[in-house]
Amino acid sequence: MTETGQSIGGTNPTAAMLVIGDEILSGRTRDANMHHLAGQLTAAGIRLAEVRVVADEEPAIVAAVTALRGSYDYVFTSGGIGPTHDDITADAIAAAFGVGIDVREDARAILATNYADPERDLNPARLRMARIPDGATLIDNPVSKAPGFRIGNVHVMAGVPKVFNAMLDAVLPTLRHGQAVASRSVDIALPEGELAGPLAEVAARHPALSIGSYPYIREGSYGAVVVVRGLPEAAVEAAAADVAALAP
Amino acid sequence: MTETGQSIGGTNPTAAMLVIGDEILSGRTRDANMHHLAGQLTAAGIRLAEVRVVADEEPAIVAAVTALRGSYDYVFTSGGIGPTHDDITADAIAAAFGVGIDVREDARAILATNYADPERDLNPARLRMARIPDGATLIDNPVSKAPGFRIGNVHVMAGVPKVFNAMLDAVLPTLRHGQAVASRSVDIALPEGELAGPLAEVAARHPALSIGSYPYIREGSYGAVVVVRGLPEAAVEAAAADVAALAP
Repeated sequence: MTETGQSIGGTNPTAAMLVIGDEILSGRTRDANMHHLAGQLTAAGIRLAEVRVVADEEPAIVAAVTALRGSYDYVFTSGGIGPTHDDITADAIAAAFGVGIDVREDARAILATNYADPERDLNPARLRMARIPDGATLIDNPVSKAPGFRIGNVHVMAGVPKVFNAMLDAVLPTLRHGQAVASRSVDIALPEGELAGPLAEVAARHPALSIGSYPYIREGSYGAVVVVRGLPEAAVEAAAADVAALAP
Repeated sequence: MTETGQSIGGTNPTAAMLVIGDEILSGRTRDANMHHLAGQLTAAGIRLAEVRVVADEEPAIVAAVTALRGSYDYVFTSGGIGPTHDDITADAIAAAFGVGIDVREDARAILATNYADPERDLNPARLRMARIPDGATLIDNPVSKAPGFRIGNVHVMAGVPKVFNAMLDAVLPTLRHGQAVASRSVDIALPEGELAGPLAEVAARHPALSIGSYPYIREGSYGAVVVVRGLPEAAVEAAAADVAALAP
């Protein structure tokens, strides 16, 4: 993809993700949100260009958010916005933007709808989830109410996949969509080392497309899935046909 | 984990991972190597502190490797070391270190053992897999021969999980191991919002430990898995008992 990767859908918006969570880095939990976000953004014509995973530590979160929000059109974070002492994402985002943070009335009102007796149940821990950085816009959470928020180009969302996905559903229509890149996959039952030469020639004949080769080993046999991506769709189909002709 | 996360196993080595691959960022492939590496490093007492995922583009790879190798004791990369035109990791690593890269005789000899007729089968594409940056040490690949390599503190490994795992097995004994951090998980069938207050008090009583809360929703019921991590093990067990006492 080297030369062409960045030019595929060159006017499409770019995005980065920041996964926040010790549990991912310790190996306790397998992240699921990155793969979901990647697929959803690709379908919306938004190019996910970088992902970072950092620990639940404010300096690490601030440094990553600051780097990513300056480099890409959109940033999406997951994790660390619950009620417990280790949920520090909202405060870290406020610090990254240099703004204040406090319990906000609209967020408190949304949380209150979760409880029969908000006076009793909306305890200090739960009110932490209504702490919103100054100037942020709330992101709807139809699963468990506690909202995410958007500040600048950064969308702060939950780590629990069911909630992350629901928040993303709410966010996607608010983003500028690009042209969805066409994609075709061709499975070639050849070792990559034999496919590589002819495939490089095909790639050279289609310089405006991205052609990636993903090797596999299945029951001792080597092969590769070749993925052709780009626009227009007819060009992708023509290149995929050229790739398919390389099959033994 | 905020305050205590960095002090857990404070003398343990730190590590970062760099996943290289458009297929992860497009959502076509779900990365498996991060989770495996995280578990293996944790078991070895090495703290995985950051992960980045970047596209198959040299500037992105160079920037990430340069940042990570300066910040952590060890860096592990996965992806982009095959024979096809889109496999650019080795060249990008050489560029990041400012060293030359060429086909190296020892790597070529290893590759040759894969073929009955190396003169015929070791074509230019396959020889790309013997391109090793100057000064690097080879990493054994018992699955498909084509070696990875270590240069400085950066370990360059394959993206195919079976090969990545085998290379990691070869690399782990060469690393400085830390003290494996003790860990206990306690499942509390309480909404995090009710658990949070008492849990913060437990955390405050055990300031040298990391206590993380990971909420879940199962069949409509809210709960949290609380993970206590740190050293010594007896302190972790005492804190886990305090957490367990919070169960309804």
